[in-house]
Amino acid sequence: MIRPVKNWTTTTQVNLEMVLYGILGVDEKSQTVTTHIWVTKHWTNEFLRWNQSDFCGIDEVSVPKAKLWIPEIAIQQDASDDSSIHEDPWVIVHPDGSMFTFLRQRLTFTCRFNLYKFPFDSQRCNITFISMDSSVSSLVLGSAINDSVLMVTSTQFMITQGEWGLKDIELVSGNITNGWRYHSTLSYTVTLDRKPFLYVINFIIPLVYLLFLDLASFSISVDSGEKFGFKVTVLLSISVLLLILKDILPSTEVDLPVIANLCVAVFTLVWLSVLESMLVSFLLNLDPCCDKESKKIYMKKDSKVHKEAEEENGQVKPEQSCFPLGKLGAVELLRLILEEVKAARQEAGSQKKHRCYRRVATIIDNLFFVGYILTFVAFVMYICIGWINL
Amino acid sequence: MIRPVKNWTTTTQVNLEMVLYGILGVDEKSQTVTTHIWVTKHWTNEFLRWNQSDFCGIDEVSVPKAKLWIPEIAIQQDASDDSSIHEDPWVIVHPDGSMFTFLRQRLTFTCRFNLYKFPFDSQRCNITFISMDSSVSSLVLGSAINDSVLMVTSTQFMITQGEWGLKDIELVSGNITNGWRYHSTLSYTVTLDRKPFLYVINFIIPLVYLLFLDLASFSISVDSGEKFGFKVTVLLSISVLLLILKDILPSTEVDLPVIANLCVAVFTLVWLSVLESMLVSFLLNLDPCCDKESKKIYMKKDSKVHKEAEEENGQVKPEQSCFPLGKLGAVELLRLILEEVKAARQEAGSQKKHRCYRRVATIIDNLFFVGYILTFVAFVMYICIGWINL
Amino acid sequence: MIRPVKNWTTTTQVNLEMVLYGILGVDEKSQTVTTHIWVTKHWTNEFLRWNQSDFCGIDEVSVPKAKLWIPEIAIQQDASDDSSIHEDPWVIVHPDGSMFTFLRQRLTFTCRFNLYKFPFDSQRCNITFISMDSSVSSLVLGSAINDSVLMVTSTQFMITQGEWGLKDIELVSGNITNGWRYHSTLSYTVTLDRKPFLYVINFIIPLVYLLFLDLASFSISVDSGEKFGFKVTVLLSISVLLLILKDILPSTEVDLPVIANLCVAVFTLVWLSVLESMLVSFLLNLDPCCDKESKKIYMKKDSKVHKEAEEENGQVKPEQSCFPLGKLGAVELLRLILEEVKAARQEAGSQKKHRCYRRVATIIDNLFFVGYILTFVAFVMYICIGWINL
Amino acid sequence: MIRPVKNWTTTTQVNLEMVLYGILGVDEKSQTVTTHIWVTKHWTNEFLRWNQSDFCGIDEVSVPKAKLWIPEIAIQQDASDDSSIHEDPWVIVHPDGSMFTFLRQRLTFTCRFNLYKFPFDSQRCNITFISMDSSVSSLVLGSAINDSVLMVTSTQFMITQGEWGLKDIELVSGNITNGWRYHSTLSYTVTLDRKPFLYVINFIIPLVYLLFLDLASFSISVDSGEKFGFKVTVLLSISVLLLILKDILPSTEVDLPVIANLCVAVFTLVWLSVLESMLVSFLLNLDPCCDKESKKIYMKKDSKVHKEAEEENGQVKPEQSCFPLGKLGAVELLRLILEEVKAARQEAGSQKKHRCYRRVATIIDNLFFVGYILTFVAFVMYICIGWINL
Amino acid sequence: MIRPVKNWTTTTQVNLEMVLYGILGVDEKSQTVTTHIWVTKHWTNEFLRWNQSDFCGIDEVSVPKAKLWIPEIAIQQDASDDSSIHEDPWVIVHPDGSMFTFLRQRLTFTCRFNLYKFPFDSQRCNITFISMDSSVSSLVLGSAINDSVLMVTSTQFMITQGEWGLKDIELVSGNITNGWRYHSTLSYTVTLDRKPFLYVINFIIPLVYLLFLDLASFSISVDSGEKFGFKVTVLLSISVLLLILKDILPSTEVDLPVIANLCVAVFTLVWLSVLESMLVSFLLNLDPCCDKESKKIYMKKDSKVHKEAEEENGQVKPEQSCFPLGKLGAVELLRLILEEVKAARQEAGSQKKHRCYRRVATIIDNLFFVGYILTFVAFVMYICIGWINL
Repeated sequence: MIRPVKNWTTTTQVNLEMVLYGILGVDEKSQTVTTHIWVTKHWTNEFLRWNQSDFCGIDEVSVPKAKLWIPEIAIQQDASDDSSIHEDPWVIVHPDGSMFTFLRQRLTFTCRFNLYKFPFDSQRCNITFISMDSSVSSLVLGSAINDSVLMVTSTQFMITQGEWGLKDIELVSGNITNGWRYHSTLSYTVTLDRKPFLYVINFIIPLVYLLFLDLASFSISVDSGEKFGFKVTVLLSISVLLLILKDILPSTEVDLPVIANLCVAVFTLVWLSVLESMLVSFLLNLDPCCDKESKKIYMKKDSKVHKEAEEENGQVKPEQSCFPLGKLGAVELLRLILEEVKAARQEAGSQKKHRCYRRVATIIDNLFFVGYILTFVAFVMYICIGWINL
Repeated sequence: MIRPVKNWTTTTQVNLEMVLYGILGVDEKSQTVTTHIWVTKHWTNEFLRWNQSDFCGIDEVSVPKAKLWIPEIAIQQDASDDSSIHEDPWVIVHPDGSMFTFLRQRLTFTCRFNLYKFPFDSQRCNITFISMDSSVSSLVLGSAINDSVLMVTSTQFMITQGEWGLKDIELVSGNITNGWRYHSTLSYTVTLDRKPFLYVINFIIPLVYLLFLDLASFSISVDSGEKFGFKVTVLLSISVLLLILKDILPSTEVDLPVIANLCVAVFTLVWLSVLESMLVSFLLNLDPCCDKESKKIYMKKDSKVHKEAEEENGQVKPEQSCFPLGKLGAVELLRLILEEVKAARQEAGSQKKHRCYRRVATIIDNLFFVGYILTFVAFVMYICIGWINL
Repeated sequence: MIRPVKNWTTTTQVNLEMVLYGILGVDEKSQTVTTHIWVTKHWTNEFLRWNQSDFCGIDEVSVPKAKLWIPEIAIQQDASDDSSIHEDPWVIVHPDGSMFTFLRQRLTFTCRFNLYKFPFDSQRCNITFISMDSSVSSLVLGSAINDSVLMVTSTQFMITQGEWGLKDIELVSGNITNGWRYHSTLSYTVTLDRKPFLYVINFIIPLVYLLFLDLASFSISVDSGEKFGFKVTVLLSISVLLLILKDILPSTEVDLPVIANLCVAVFTLVWLSVLESMLVSFLLNLDPCCDKESKKIYMKKDSKVHKEAEEENGQVKPEQSCFPLGKLGAVELLRLILEEVKAARQEAGSQKKHRCYRRVATIIDNLFFVGYILTFVAFVMYICIGWINL
Repeated sequence: MIRPVKNWTTTTQVNLEMVLYGILGVDEKSQTVTTHIWVTKHWTNEFLRWNQSDFCGIDEVSVPKAKLWIPEIAIQQDASDDSSIHEDPWVIVHPDGSMFTFLRQRLTFTCRFNLYKFPFDSQRCNITFISMDSSVSSLVLGSAINDSVLMVTSTQFMITQGEWGLKDIELVSGNITNGWRYHSTLSYTVTLDRKPFLYVINFIIPLVYLLFLDLASFSISVDSGEKFGFKVTVLLSISVLLLILKDILPSTEVDLPVIANLCVAVFTLVWLSVLESMLVSFLLNLDPCCDKESKKIYMKKDSKVHKEAEEENGQVKPEQSCFPLGKLGAVELLRLILEEVKAARQEAGSQKKHRCYRRVATIIDNLFFVGYILTFVAFVMYICIGWINL
Repeated sequence: MIRPVKNWTTTTQVNLEMVLYGILGVDEKSQTVTTHIWVTKHWTNEFLRWNQSDFCGIDEVSVPKAKLWIPEIAIQQDASDDSSIHEDPWVIVHPDGSMFTFLRQRLTFTCRFNLYKFPFDSQRCNITFISMDSSVSSLVLGSAINDSVLMVTSTQFMITQGEWGLKDIELVSGNITNGWRYHSTLSYTVTLDRKPFLYVINFIIPLVYLLFLDLASFSISVDSGEKFGFKVTVLLSISVLLLILKDILPSTEVDLPVIANLCVAVFTLVWLSVLESMLVSFLLNLDPCCDKESKKIYMKKDSKVHKEAEEENGQVKPEQSCFPLGKLGAVELLRLILEEVKAARQEAGSQKKHRCYRRVATIIDNLFFVGYILTFVAFVMYICIGWINL
């Protein structure tokens, strides 16, 4: 079938009107958007005209598509199945030769996503209608309506939005070349706004809450026997959240998303704080040993005292402990009892004193805590700048 | 093929009858409903009539579709694949020119969901049949049966319901304009009731149970060494439930679902209670220090007492501990033993007394507990109002 | 094409033979079954007959389908894609006019499931062949073989069964009306038996094991500091199992499955036992306080004794503790030491005596344990009756 | 179109050549295998012959399929979509009447799996080509190449193998009857070897490691307060692994897989060991009570001793504890102090002695440990025999 | 339709131009890549030529495909559905007989992956265009552009890349034989670079972090009662990561991926360290027993001392404990009190001394720690070599 123009140099103008009925889904992994659209094509057939009055006033006739030339328009980004298109098999013809045809499509199109600000991002996607087989000199694509009418229509007809809201539609006509000739194009630039609600609830809030918990866990004393368990459970929870991140973010490198930075930073902070609390606990556990050493010295001194005391009494006791007790007077026995009781009390009390490493541990703990908070504040500022200012 | 009317101004009435065979699935993310429907189309061909008696009483003839004009009816919300439609290739023709044709379709249609009351919600979805290529002046859609018969038929034929029950079907005829002409429409407004059973069992009951557990964990004493582990495990469980929420709810912002509020509120309450129990534990751990300080004062007093006692005895002991013991009488030794035993008992006892921060901690704990319960009650009321009254 | 009968009132008998090649899957959520079937259609064309001897004994000719009338048979419950049908494009014609045609289909059909006895359920599904465009007066569906042969054939040809075993196939001919005329139907009632093996291993055994663990955890003493952690981990495990339940069961309300009851009951039992052990622990923790009070009374008495003792000695000591010690004799000192040692031992021992609430706690614990076991036994009986008797 | 033979009794020989390009996936649940195959069909048309020299030496002509008789060959186990077949629309004709046609298909076919030795299993699947509409007397299927060439070709062309390796292809010609006539078949019996690497790493190694951990946890003493937590965490981990089992194994009952036995056995062993350690802990906790009873006896004896001692002293003290102290001499006081100190020491020491149930617990523990190890060894042998010998 | 050449021996040159629009996904399990491509086919029809000046300068005519011979080109690795191809139904014809046709396809093709260096791998995949029905003597495939232009074009048009970046495209013409004749081929060798970002964040970093945590947990003392819980939680976390590994890696054996080695090694290291810490804990728990034994010896000695002391006093006391106390003098009583106090202090102190197995445990611990670190370092070097050098 030949393009229906009387002079072959006449350019046929095809007007398109796309109405967005719904945004069914966005797949960040494969970088595709699935929508539900209705498209109206309108052009003029110079040979199919009649005088309405000659034919009882008929102002509209339906003709099967197969009988007429139909402009072949494709969408450049279209990656959908063929069976997702449902075309009306009829063309509507008007007395002035203007022809209309409709199609409905569940359109899956590719779109380059910028996920830097995820989940507060908005994506600009192009749906570029292009004449596959006619050059720009024979077929030009246009639109009957302008941007604002388009936006109003789409907002009015849009049934489903789900996770994404339609922010803006722009219309740009242009040409594209495949190297040896030019094709006319009509681009709908659709701007979509993500509704971040669920990601905030499911990912950001738990992450920040867990970071706060870790921060607060500095107040748990190491002796309570719950600190490590608590911290490692927090770390496990963050691991689980990392898995969710994997589900929602593709593995792209350009424009590393702020949320990934957030996640890694929180994980690292919590991990460092586990290591630090282990170091502190290790230092505190060193103390009993050093204490023992100091005790040994003490005990040497003690035994020296004994010896002196013994020498004072002028008695040599090869087995000081038990045997010669029988020969002691009540006063010496009382003195020995006093010494024993004192020693027992000192031993019980020593548990809490003389900790030479405890000061080091406390200093490390406090320094780390300050560093932690500073990093935390700096990071929150970075995140906010990333999400808001850009 | 031309519309089979003798006078082109005659409007063709097409009667549709849709029977809902099953609701196969509802996808909240893409906001689509998948159903299984059978549609009967019925109209009159003014040229295809015969006198039954002239043709041996034949009252029904099957004619291939390709030979006749068939009204092209589409569903506006239809987002299904083309291959999901299975059309009967024949038209049944009766002597009076009335024609019948059937089709079965696995219909996936878009529907604007309102998830505010999820999972106790019911959704109203429109299935709008529309003549794609004929204006309202040439083709009018109608229904042979009324709402109540429709409801009875659908209830009777409905094979599968799964998660959704059919509550109501309404039938509305109308017109729709695409700007330059009117199309006749026939809308089936289907009201679906979700069966909330599984969500209650899997999400709401565990969530509420966990909240109660957290509430009950106020009764665990901080000293038991199980409180933090218990609470953080409860928090982890709620995180897991949050993930389920993500699976079942789309990220929409309009009409924030009550269940999401419930989830965030429970998470926040439990999180706050973990923080609060940490604060309490921290305050209780402060006590030994303050206690130590008070002990220092006490010990100073004690040593002063010693000195007084020593002065009383008029003896100067530069090394009070061991050396001069030998020179003491039994009475002084007994006095010293008594002092030691007393001091030891006081030290052991001091663990439980003089806690200056404990009162603060207890007050905070009780205040928080009361606030927790009040918030809890207020929230339960809000949830119930949200789920019931709206 | 016209139905190939000489007299239009003659009814054409179409014999169907369906062989079930495999049960590929059952989807409880959308209530559909996917099978792999081969269907043979057989009928008689009264015009296409020849005398074998006239044509060199040709006893079989293949004719393209497009050239002949083919009965249009649909499956009422069929919700599969059009592309899942693979029809032989030829019809085999025999000299007596009998015609055969084959088709293979990956059939997805809807079926009303009854999941009450899940996973020990068996489902009865209908595959109803129906003539879409011919009434019962012109086309009657039948089967060349009877039920038992059918069962034998299907068992023999069945390649894959997977989770479901074919228990029985029944064959029922009948009529169905769509309001204004009758259609002939042929129903295959397929009874499928679920093989419960995996669900028992993955769900029921772990659930029952966990319930037993919880029951056994009554033997852990509250003082061990492991009871709550143990119980809350068991609860967490049951939550995880609840999630599996969500994956395998749809959210239907009619005939609440026994397994859902089991799951909720186990969850509730374990939850109650956590709460109960908290109550017991709380009561036991109350004891030290009440003990302290009783001690205060004791100490008052003690100090009264002191006073009496002091009065006995006729001495007034405004600061009884330290100052006047110097003036005491050895006997008084020994008496004071004895008092101190006694008091210390009583304090240490008091930890284990005088627990006024412990008896209450023990009674609650035992009562709850008995109630727990009774409920458990009653529930096991209910479950068994549910799974076996129905 | 008629089969292109001069005499209708001539049998047409159709030679098939299937090349396996890839094994895309195996679905154990639905028991299907997805492959990527290329099939060449070759037969002879007795009417389409020419003398090459008469036609400028043309040795090959392409003819559209629609113009010629094409043998209709189906695959019996084929459960794929129609759209997965991509047929060359041309037939290549040679001067001797031999005709070639190609098709490529993403073939999903059903196959009866035997998962007994999973994941060390190998599966034998049949791909049976069958002539749908011609009986064996008119169309016979054959193969131009033999088994070994076939294996070489497939190994050479096989692009992707993924989880499965091609072990063997066999070729069998045969007949099959559908009751009233015979069809010629050509079966490719494909033997696939699973590569078990990932399942060993992800399932078997962790499971065995966890069993060893549980075995090793017998060395943890009950008093450490970590035993139950450790064991229940191991049990939880095994539950998680059970879930993986559910993902990889279908719920079939015939030939219960060895790996399922392994899983259930490990779960049960660990569960029993948790119960056993609870029993042991319970018995150990009984001791203090029995100890208390023995202490009561002791204390009675003690008080009897007191009484005797008192009687010895010939004094009646109705309130032995405090009041009459003032009247005692130093020796009696010392004796009382000695008694107090002794009693205190005995009380502290009694914690560790007199445990009447401990022996029972230790015996149970050791017996169970031996039984555990024996079961473990027996089971490992059973598993190995199951995986290797069969 | 016949190939449009005047002399049948003339070879038709078909130039292909493939532009890669997007890489939609890579499936490691089924070893397929899904892309979005546009293909231009260009060849010359020797019969369809006209003199532009004779026909008003017409330089381009669109002709329906069905009217002309179209070369049938397939992609050897293509495993996509038929409906994924969207062909322009028109051919563009130029006055010199050169013809152009376009098609867009969502191409899923098989590709042999080498996952050894996952996730730092890059894959080379072939897209081989092949003439299905024409031998190399009649149809030769070529490309109008060379490699570098191709790379520039693809980089410019590539809309979506997602996880994979296009590194290189090479173009190779060749022949392939199916045994009895040669076909012309045109291979696009596409080199894809994986962007490892997400796998590093989600898998490698957590894994290495967890290994460090386990390494650091050597510093936790066994007495703290947190060591096993900590380590088993780390093990559980690694199990969870193993599950992720299962999701991202197929079960292939050739070229066992480095990351799988990493995972198994980390799991085994952590598992060994749990076992080792159990051994150490077991040895330390042996001590109290051996201590008890040594104490028994001590106590025997003690009682011997008693006896000696008693003998010294020349008194025989059959019931040494209580009865004869009344008859002792103050000095003997004091001596007994001293003995009691000493024994009590020794018992309390013995808890910390005489540990005969502790040294063995410490040696094992240190040796294991050194071995652990050495293995760790060696393994890190192996991993780095695996990922970098190959």
